[in-house]
Amino acid sequence: MPELRKDPITGRWVIIATDRAKRPNDFIRQPVPPPTVSTCPFDAGNEHKTPPEVLSYRNSGGRDEPGWRVRVVPNKFPVLGIEGDLNRQGEGMYDKMNGIGAHEVIIEGPDHCKTFGELPEKLIEEVLWAFRDRVNDLKKDKRFRYIILFRNYGEAAGASLEHPHSQLIALPVIPKRVKEEVDAAKMFFDLKERCIFCDIIRQESSAGVRLVTETDRFTVLAPYAPRFPFETWIVPKQHESHYEEADAGTLANLAWVLRTTIRKIDKVLERPAYNFIVHSSPVQEPSLSYYHWHIEIIPKLTKVAGFEWGTGFYINPTPPEESAKFLREAGLG
Amino acid sequence: MPELRKDPITGRWVIIATDRAKRPNDFIRQPVPPPTVSTCPFDAGNEHKTPPEVLSYRNSGGRDEPGWRVRVVPNKFPVLGIEGDLNRQGEGMYDKMNGIGAHEVIIEGPDHCKTFGELPEKLIEEVLWAFRDRVNDLKKDKRFRYIILFRNYGEAAGASLEHPHSQLIALPVIPKRVKEEVDAAKMFFDLKERCIFCDIIRQESSAGVRLVTETDRFTVLAPYAPRFPFETWIVPKQHESHYEEADAGTLANLAWVLRTTIRKIDKVLERPAYNFIVHSSPVQEPSLSYYHWHIEIIPKLTKVAGFEWGTGFYINPTPPEESAKFLREAGLG
Repeated sequence: MPELRKDPITGRWVIIATDRAKRPNDFIRQPVPPPTVSTCPFDAGNEHKTPPEVLSYRNSGGRDEPGWRVRVVPNKFPVLGIEGDLNRQGEGMYDKMNGIGAHEVIIEGPDHCKTFGELPEKLIEEVLWAFRDRVNDLKKDKRFRYIILFRNYGEAAGASLEHPHSQLIALPVIPKRVKEEVDAAKMFFDLKERCIFCDIIRQESSAGVRLVTETDRFTVLAPYAPRFPFETWIVPKQHESHYEEADAGTLANLAWVLRTTIRKIDKVLERPAYNFIVHSSPVQEPSLSYYHWHIEIIPKLTKVAGFEWGTGFYINPTPPEESAKFLREAGLG
Repeated sequence: MPELRKDPITGRWVIIATDRAKRPNDFIRQPVPPPTVSTCPFDAGNEHKTPPEVLSYRNSGGRDEPGWRVRVVPNKFPVLGIEGDLNRQGEGMYDKMNGIGAHEVIIEGPDHCKTFGELPEKLIEEVLWAFRDRVNDLKKDKRFRYIILFRNYGEAAGASLEHPHSQLIALPVIPKRVKEEVDAAKMFFDLKERCIFCDIIRQESSAGVRLVTETDRFTVLAPYAPRFPFETWIVPKQHESHYEEADAGTLANLAWVLRTTIRKIDKVLERPAYNFIVHSSPVQEPSLSYYHWHIEIIPKLTKVAGFEWGTGFYINPTPPEESAKFLREAGLG
């Protein structure tokens, strides 16, 4: 008998197959092909092929010269424009505004051919610092109400360039799904006077069945009602609502945790395409007692079909207890 | 400058690229390959390879024999089980219940090799009748609160069998996205004392820029704030909340409209993978003045990436005014 499980935060029901659960080998493996070395605008020496950098951490060289370790540039084909006014207006019964926002690329080192798990831990730590620095800079612009940090790996996950990179989009509105999550966490807090994410960490640490790994600062777990097989969350143990407030010790530890988790996924699922997304509080809000930043990693193993689009109801062929066990037993951390 | 547009029903913002809008030829074409004739459980003569049929319209033969025009069978690998109690229960802080529901396949004729647009209009009309008959039968089971009808075409849209077929899933809960849409429509009605879908039909009929085609009974349009390029809706002009209440004249006309719309999409986008989903009211509800059933068609032209998963915020490279124009000018209806 399959199980219907409810995500405690959003209230979304998912169908979890329990009888004929899919194990890693049951998915059609589509490993992301190794990079082909070609002319890449993100390679060292090609700095002139991107818009001028907005941030770099460097060993040598000046702005837009080689010698950088991590480099952040505006996306050459941004989905939103940085200049102008929002100019909110109606159009008959509809509402629209100008597409104002920022769209940046965080280039994770000059080496074209590394996967994220192959990057040195120190470099990942610097990428996490770049995330933090860019959000703290962009949030000064009061037009931006939400900033999303994410990484698409592999074509199936929406990546169009193979050079290691993450992205950031600053938005003039709080997106629907974010608002739902934040509002629901607030409702829980109003009822219980506790953060729902802190509750989840406590329950998962003691139950253990959905735990992937733990450090002093982070819990890595398969959520109780995941939408996707092998969906994995990285949650800081210390309550903190905004990623960009994370301190140096937290970012250092997160570099290890994130790298280790991705390496586990690469090992168990044979380097699948994936997305990871930093879920954090709206940037113009002060520290919130009810929301808790975290990272959600979604390997792309299944296709989303009509049923999911129509209902927001997901069918997950792998119970999180199984995915957590596979990742836990993969070793590496 | 891209535009941010708000879906008037759900309140979801989407980014519409306006400068470098993608036209049909700009998408990487991945036509669904023509069917390979192989052993298919849905072919005439293979009736024993499916679970016993729950409905058939026939020229000849008895139950589970050849001679049928449309045949409905339980899915051999159902995502939910039909027998048992829901047995709602807690698990620590979480909620779950047994995965009770129905999962059926509507086999759209014995011919293995036809696309939907190639099916005779009369056959499509019978498929639409089968949708109606199955919902009316299943809704007698009071455990089922929502029944979703959908079609996945092509592997990229989640189809695993190439024989023409649609699917139906009956659920013991009202899915989140459905509830959002119904609740939002109710809120609009409470405010305006009008159905928001009826308002949309009026606005789109008079503006015309997002209109694909119209009949006496249906409006086919590109919605104002579509999530996906070439997303297309088929909306009955007469207010009706439940698909399963549609009368014979409506179903006959819908057969023409749906077939014509799919043929337009096949022509303009070169037979892309797609999903279509019937959005209808929760089946245990009486007729609702505030909700309006309709069909949403989503061609699969882009990949959904981290940004979309993280935010519920969609980037659509084709303005609906352009997609409607291409489909309108494709002729055929």
